[in-house]
Amino acid sequence: MRDDLEPRPPTGKPFDAVGFGLNAVDHLITVPHYPPFNTKVQLREYVVRPGGQVATAMVALARLGCRTRYIGKVGDDEFGRLQLRSLAEAGVEHSQVKVVPGATSQLAFILIDEPSGERTIIWGRDPRLIMRPEELDREAITSGRVLHLDGHDVAAAIQAARWAREAGIPVVIDVDNFYPGVEELLPLVDYLITSAEFPKRFLGIAEPEEALRALKRRYQNPFVAITLGDQGAIAYCHGVFIHSPAFRVPCRDTTGAGDAFRGGFIYGLLNGLSVTETLRFANAVAGLNCRGVGARGGLPTLAEVQELLRTQ
Amino acid sequence: MRDDLEPRPPTGKPFDAVGFGLNAVDHLITVPHYPPFNTKVQLREYVVRPGGQVATAMVALARLGCRTRYIGKVGDDEFGRLQLRSLAEAGVEHSQVKVVPGATSQLAFILIDEPSGERTIIWGRDPRLIMRPEELDREAITSGRVLHLDGHDVAAAIQAARWAREAGIPVVIDVDNFYPGVEELLPLVDYLITSAEFPKRFLGIAEPEEALRALKRRYQNPFVAITLGDQGAIAYCHGVFIHSPAFRVPCRDTTGAGDAFRGGFIYGLLNGLSVTETLRFANAVAGLNCRGVGARGGLPTLAEVQELLRTQ
Repeated sequence: MRDDLEPRPPTGKPFDAVGFGLNAVDHLITVPHYPPFNTKVQLREYVVRPGGQVATAMVALARLGCRTRYIGKVGDDEFGRLQLRSLAEAGVEHSQVKVVPGATSQLAFILIDEPSGERTIIWGRDPRLIMRPEELDREAITSGRVLHLDGHDVAAAIQAARWAREAGIPVVIDVDNFYPGVEELLPLVDYLITSAEFPKRFLGIAEPEEALRALKRRYQNPFVAITLGDQGAIAYCHGVFIHSPAFRVPCRDTTGAGDAFRGGFIYGLLNGLSVTETLRFANAVAGLNCRGVGARGGLPTLAEVQELLRTQ
Repeated sequence: MRDDLEPRPPTGKPFDAVGFGLNAVDHLITVPHYPPFNTKVQLREYVVRPGGQVATAMVALARLGCRTRYIGKVGDDEFGRLQLRSLAEAGVEHSQVKVVPGATSQLAFILIDEPSGERTIIWGRDPRLIMRPEELDREAITSGRVLHLDGHDVAAAIQAARWAREAGIPVVIDVDNFYPGVEELLPLVDYLITSAEFPKRFLGIAEPEEALRALKRRYQNPFVAITLGDQGAIAYCHGVFIHSPAFRVPCRDTTGAGDAFRGGFIYGLLNGLSVTETLRFANAVAGLNCRGVGARGGLPTLAEVQELLRTQ
């Protein structure tokens, strides 16, 4: 078995990773139990924190010491300013983030079940936040060693993936929902990482190994993986399945665990780690992020990840 | 059968009704379906509106043409100012509302199921918003012909109910949860109106007639009633049960229906309507309020209520 990841990121780029996709502001509402329909429950805690899957993955990488850039849109409201402040504080380059006059920043209400830390998410997005292909800057999109996408704003994502491919830059995608056009996008991706929901809902396949085979057959990606929450992740590459279990870390809130996983995965890719090392590293970043409330609440430093990898 | 409500409100007061109890700011989140635990759903609409059970009942009465006063606390934040603005616009006297420095206004996340209009509520309250008995002004509490309470801030509510009783002012209560001390408060009330949940959860009785008998036996109120959502309301007084069905009105959002019902009920009390007329009037106000989004989204004028009563 070959245990390295391919394609490999080129060198000589101003950024290690460029992310184009969602950012959001999360309203994190901790409840003593998830309320049954048509009942009342008193909340335990309510905080507002920056999140969004691609923006958070870039923050995770920055925290690990990588040079990252985020490209996307925010509304010209209090929450958009909160997002920009968070990116700035994390050291994520964000000069390509567009502030859309009159638009509301993307938001999510995240109901956190206190006993388990599991989340139920209600999200909304102002259509004015959609990025169109003609708004993208080719030089910015190809300014990193890796390009990270999600399945939103599909037309622009297809454009970005094509440019990256032409420039020899590997494309990673975090896809959790089926949008029109995503069938055209996914074959352009090198590293396809989905939630467990995605193949279940859109291919009707719940069993992970079977789902990975179906994804690979359908989109021909060199590498496919599924994140499994507290079960870690399972990948299919070079014809074998690799199941990397999650780390046992005290869990306060699983928000952003998937985003942190992608950050850790890209770190492995950038640093020439093997498939197994990369999955283990990604699980460690994801697990440690669950220590704190919010998508970015517990993002670890490289030293913290190395400590966890050494001890578990 | 006697069909009038007793005790009757005195005359010669500056206000028709005084309400002391909750106000809140509601985050109304309309979803295409109530999300199962640990899933994601895209919201349809998100708006922020003033609410809270006693404050909304006072606004309902003001809209019907009554002179009302609201007494309570708000935080010194954007949402507290929104509440004060709403009371001012409705013409509710609110000079006794205290703005608490550093406190967060009470808030509720209300998940509205689009197909049914039914709501699941997640609420939170800053402990600094609790009103203590020594903070109440006796003259203000007894400045109306009727006093309306809820079960929160029990010690202060007991004080207020005692003052009202001494002044010959009937006390109405809207109680939906069991707080320590509520057993001492409820016997001081003339018109006890609970949600269907209250007797189910705290007396273990789901059947409404049986629950009304148990409430009456326990608290000795001259009048007890239970609101039943889209089934209307059922009352027990003068030894008979009166079931007043809900009106068939297009329902956009049931938020505040119970508060509006209390407003309509107090209107009947103030205007010498019979028990049956009062319940029907209250149901009409509640039904019409479901036309719009938010606790106060569809509160009717007197003419609108009369029109509905004439045609259904």
